[in-house]
Amino acid sequence: MRATVIHAPHDIRVEEVPDATVQQPTDVVLRVLRACICGSDLWAYRGESARQPGQRIGHEFLGVVEEAGPGVKGFAVGDLVVAPFVWSDGTCTYCAEGLTTSCPQGGFWGSVGSDGGQGEAVRVPFADGTLVRLPAAAASDDRLLTALLALSDVLGTGHHAALGAAVKPGSTVAVVGDGAVGLCGVMAAKRLGAERIIALGRHQVRTDIARAFGATDVVAERGEAALAAVRELTRGEGAHGVIEAVGTEQSMRTAIGIVRDGGSIGYVGVPHGSGTGIDLGDMFDRNIALRGGVAPVRTYIPELLPDVLDGTIDPSPVFDLSVGLDGVPGGYKAMDERTALKVLITP
Amino acid sequence: MRATVIHAPHDIRVEEVPDATVQQPTDVVLRVLRACICGSDLWAYRGESARQPGQRIGHEFLGVVEEAGPGVKGFAVGDLVVAPFVWSDGTCTYCAEGLTTSCPQGGFWGSVGSDGGQGEAVRVPFADGTLVRLPAAAASDDRLLTALLALSDVLGTGHHAALGAAVKPGSTVAVVGDGAVGLCGVMAAKRLGAERIIALGRHQVRTDIARAFGATDVVAERGEAALAAVRELTRGEGAHGVIEAVGTEQSMRTAIGIVRDGGSIGYVGVPHGSGTGIDLGDMFDRNIALRGGVAPVRTYIPELLPDVLDGTIDPSPVFDLSVGLDGVPGGYKAMDERTALKVLITP
Repeated sequence: MRATVIHAPHDIRVEEVPDATVQQPTDVVLRVLRACICGSDLWAYRGESARQPGQRIGHEFLGVVEEAGPGVKGFAVGDLVVAPFVWSDGTCTYCAEGLTTSCPQGGFWGSVGSDGGQGEAVRVPFADGTLVRLPAAAASDDRLLTALLALSDVLGTGHHAALGAAVKPGSTVAVVGDGAVGLCGVMAAKRLGAERIIALGRHQVRTDIARAFGATDVVAERGEAALAAVRELTRGEGAHGVIEAVGTEQSMRTAIGIVRDGGSIGYVGVPHGSGTGIDLGDMFDRNIALRGGVAPVRTYIPELLPDVLDGTIDPSPVFDLSVGLDGVPGGYKAMDERTALKVLITP
Repeated sequence: MRATVIHAPHDIRVEEVPDATVQQPTDVVLRVLRACICGSDLWAYRGESARQPGQRIGHEFLGVVEEAGPGVKGFAVGDLVVAPFVWSDGTCTYCAEGLTTSCPQGGFWGSVGSDGGQGEAVRVPFADGTLVRLPAAAASDDRLLTALLALSDVLGTGHHAALGAAVKPGSTVAVVGDGAVGLCGVMAAKRLGAERIIALGRHQVRTDIARAFGATDVVAERGEAALAAVRELTRGEGAHGVIEAVGTEQSMRTAIGIVRDGGSIGYVGVPHGSGTGIDLGDMFDRNIALRGGVAPVRTYIPELLPDVLDGTIDPSPVFDLSVGLDGVPGGYKAMDERTALKVLITP
């Protein structure tokens, strides 16, 4: 089969690799219908996250069950399913509590020895714990299929950020980061009842999506000017909750700077310097909480799925470039250069 | 009147200062019956927190209203009252929400121009917002008066830490820090229903108090050995919640190292390096939350007071050395050298 392989920073290739096969009784092989490129894949692409040459890549995908191991109970060949970006056994204490990302038997797609999502097929371990069934009819609805793909990561991660930011009806929320996760954070905050949602961003294509997703205000300023702008919008106090969807030192500083005393920062940007942006003395004086981390999206899919199916929310606009498998290297380049927001892959 | 003044690191003196007087209609003058020395006073004593030469010091006290301004509605001369370690107006949005430490008109005892608690009397701004009445009978009960003094800071701060650590019935909680706040954190965790409380400490006098306050286990090891010991007590997982009551880089590293995935660290140790101890990448991977800060103890006093009055909880054992005003400099020395846990002052 063909799949995306990362050989070195900026060296992404689509190659022939061994076919995905059932290796354990609880595996399924999934034929990928849709996959995509994540902002966090760019850390590997840029060499800021280490990868072994030849590792697969891609962790967001949905598709059809092509083969199921004898121990798989919940899925049969032909089922349309979505995978969260981490597999998990569904039976451990952590899975029972909903913290599927801490499953001792869990793992990340594309880690050494496992398939990545940006390919024709994927071996899915612990299929019963990992996958979630989708209505078969969705397979023939292009727009819906694209929206459902967001359940594999960005929508659930945005939801996790909104929970971390303690969003509730009436909240004022600020969102740092105008990538797909930040935009899904806007959508999630709106869904949880936020009254005012301030999106920080200066790229109009993106801030237009933010507005369509529920942002009531857009702040294009950066640094100190951004802090002043958010404070002006919030009676000088700041936002009750802030979604930090970048992970850099500057983004964390901004998040802390614009959160109201007693408020919460929901951090979901993979940390690449953001720890350095934490001024704990300031957070201490103002009782700022920091909550979040890698999102247990498997847990959130059953809650978010009905709203995507009935059109209450539609995250599909975050995908603004569509490629086939051969177009994946170009897709990375486009996202790296910020000419694309999020790249959809139809293998 | 006489009060404690800090002139320089390690230079604490008891001196004649101007009498406390009513300056604003909402002030009262409080005659101090009991005060004490806080672990956080030691940061100033050691020169690690800057003070202007001649600043007052001390932020924990209770006493009797000696004079009340014409705008004071809730208190009269002769009332026995306790003061939280921050004054607050009781009328702003933050006070209404319970975050009295963010009151724009609030302030710390001993800040430039204000009285400190370690003296004969204190001018209390915004008396109606700041003070809480105590039963008059408590004035003649030495043990009870000492226990009630803990409401001014350490008991409420321990409670704040336990809330930050998300303690609930059945929780396993670990407490980093064997000072008065850590010990009150043990007490607060027990009060909130924690099933297992692991106190980290190697001074038996202190760990004996921890056990008396509700600790079920004591870990005397430090560093990596402490992490291993806590994990061994918790099926390899760590504690659901951790109280961080020190504020150093090492204590924060320990707190993060012993918290269970998905758990919360309630941080109340005034940060002196603890920000550097934050490994955000590890916290991200394990969904660790950080919550806490300077405790709005004014808000907690009405909840904690009945339990102190009826003897359900008795924090008085944290005071293990009692001095008069002249003994205050020696009290600082004793706490700095860790020969005293917490010093009670009877002016």
